[in-house]
Amino acid sequence: MMNQNTHTNRRIVLASRPKGAPVPDNLRLETADLPPLEDRQVLLRTVYLSLDPYMRGRMNDAESYSVPVEINAVMGAGTVSRVVNSKHPDFHTGDWVLNYGGWQDYSVADGKDLQKLSADLVAHPSWALGVLGMPAFTAYMGLMDIGQPKAGETVVVAAATGAVGSVVGQVAKLKGCRTVGIAGGQDKCRYAVDILGFDTCIDRRADDFAQRLAQACPDGIDIYFENVGGAVFDAVMPLLNTSARIPLCGLIAQYNMQALPEGQDRLPQLMGLLLRKRIRLQGFIISQDYAPRYNEFIQAMTPWVKEGKVQMREDIVDGLEHAPQAFIGLLQGKNFGKLVIRVGNDSL
Amino acid sequence: MMNQNTHTNRRIVLASRPKGAPVPDNLRLETADLPPLEDRQVLLRTVYLSLDPYMRGRMNDAESYSVPVEINAVMGAGTVSRVVNSKHPDFHTGDWVLNYGGWQDYSVADGKDLQKLSADLVAHPSWALGVLGMPAFTAYMGLMDIGQPKAGETVVVAAATGAVGSVVGQVAKLKGCRTVGIAGGQDKCRYAVDILGFDTCIDRRADDFAQRLAQACPDGIDIYFENVGGAVFDAVMPLLNTSARIPLCGLIAQYNMQALPEGQDRLPQLMGLLLRKRIRLQGFIISQDYAPRYNEFIQAMTPWVKEGKVQMREDIVDGLEHAPQAFIGLLQGKNFGKLVIRVGNDSL
Repeated sequence: MMNQNTHTNRRIVLASRPKGAPVPDNLRLETADLPPLEDRQVLLRTVYLSLDPYMRGRMNDAESYSVPVEINAVMGAGTVSRVVNSKHPDFHTGDWVLNYGGWQDYSVADGKDLQKLSADLVAHPSWALGVLGMPAFTAYMGLMDIGQPKAGETVVVAAATGAVGSVVGQVAKLKGCRTVGIAGGQDKCRYAVDILGFDTCIDRRADDFAQRLAQACPDGIDIYFENVGGAVFDAVMPLLNTSARIPLCGLIAQYNMQALPEGQDRLPQLMGLLLRKRIRLQGFIISQDYAPRYNEFIQAMTPWVKEGKVQMREDIVDGLEHAPQAFIGLLQGKNFGKLVIRVGNDSL
Repeated sequence: MMNQNTHTNRRIVLASRPKGAPVPDNLRLETADLPPLEDRQVLLRTVYLSLDPYMRGRMNDAESYSVPVEINAVMGAGTVSRVVNSKHPDFHTGDWVLNYGGWQDYSVADGKDLQKLSADLVAHPSWALGVLGMPAFTAYMGLMDIGQPKAGETVVVAAATGAVGSVVGQVAKLKGCRTVGIAGGQDKCRYAVDILGFDTCIDRRADDFAQRLAQACPDGIDIYFENVGGAVFDAVMPLLNTSARIPLCGLIAQYNMQALPEGQDRLPQLMGLLLRKRIRLQGFIISQDYAPRYNEFIQAMTPWVKEGKVQMREDIVDGLEHAPQAFIGLLQGKNFGKLVIRVGNDSL
């Protein structure tokens, strides 16, 4: 099975904290023995590993929205795994589970944080990290609970072909909204319109990006789903309508920022805009804020996925050893769809 | 009756748009004939005139949250008035009404925007502009709908002795919260604690204001009711707890701002904070956002006011001609309590 073996555990640890954009030296691949299993523990072999922008925040010491990863500790990540050995009565060799196994071949879990995959997911295990997993859950709750879309409204989605953005756009369309995507490059924009069903998609790399976005939103913006920040948010701000809603789940454009930009302080400008236009701007973290509503999400999303009404392109990279470079590329927008590392084979 | 007469209408018009802080020359007192009454119209004599910070925004040309007042047009304002002549079947001479009569002795209304005062209010007509009027409605809905207070939470209130802030503090206390006021000067702070029942109140003019605020909030801030902005918000930001809520109904510290401050652009910092701490920041304008819930407010607030559980200090200035100076002082925090101009006598 790929580069996995049954005796040792390859794992990627945080070697040093990035200054600005992460570089390969910030991460280190190392090898260790498999730990012995204690009573009620389960040994899991990672099959799929999810790479997500929030992980950049956890590489920092403090100013992150998640708990920092310690230096020399394994990088955390959601994973889909198979049970290879179990001393827990509820789990058996061969079971497929969703866990937070991290960037490594093997992980040990007690039963509490393990979730067995449903039959739907055993047929498509990587979906547990994507279209029926955390990114889609983020998209669904942010749009529905904070965005509260109404038919006919204009919904603008940053990173429109990314894991979260693609689901936001498709669900907003199902709710009768006009959907305007923003993506990096012509290929992604074409995909957003042709495959994901966005009404239009604007290339954020275009010189006249802000002007094109304005033209694409003749009735202004009612919902802006924010996971980017930076120049994209700058272009969105003047287009926001009265009573607009901004679910905020990520700010990938500023994760590598080491100091605030010099120039005018636009904090009062943003506050004034929120007041004048009576806008709701709300940050959220799906696992912290919406865990009790997971079943609501699954019940809404599963039929859409089965009927082909919501899909998520996967950008699958083979081999744990390629995770660092893939992650660095993710922060640069080089992925196209949900970035997943195939760490091991599906087969037992 | 004071300086009112029955033949002519004194009115205060916008003479020119302020550059920065308003000056007396921006406003002009002029006299005009009373207009003839047409069918289904009502002639109203202003008794009380409400002065509120939002009026500063309406003096600007565009970048305001309300429709601008035209040059040479009468300044708008909520008023409590008595009917002096009526050609409308529903209104009779002597009736007390709440209307948007503006800064003038007399106004003419069709019936649509007139609201007769309840018996409770006829006994205390100025309350219709304060503790049972727009400022208290703003306080109540912002706190309850956006703030969603839970017992034991820490609620910080800017302009704590002002019309809105004083009600926020008292209602939050009734809901079991710990209340920390912010006010300008020792007298106001003492009043906030002794009379309004805040647990503590910090003088925003103190050199070590930010440090004192931090000491007053050992468990952080769960709700910050924002109607000030500027240095107060700067001190609040680092104290905000995870899942904090910020109802935003005013920004008096920046209404006179003519250009954004030079220095670092803190917009990304604010966005990062909202994401990391999963904060809800929401602007609202009571008349636009909550009109359908007016009865809910009246039903909750009336018993509290009658039982003395919620009170609002009134800062009453006699004479329409003093409205410009009083308004200029309001923007400087010189008022102490709800600022009301007594334009005419109560008696018919």
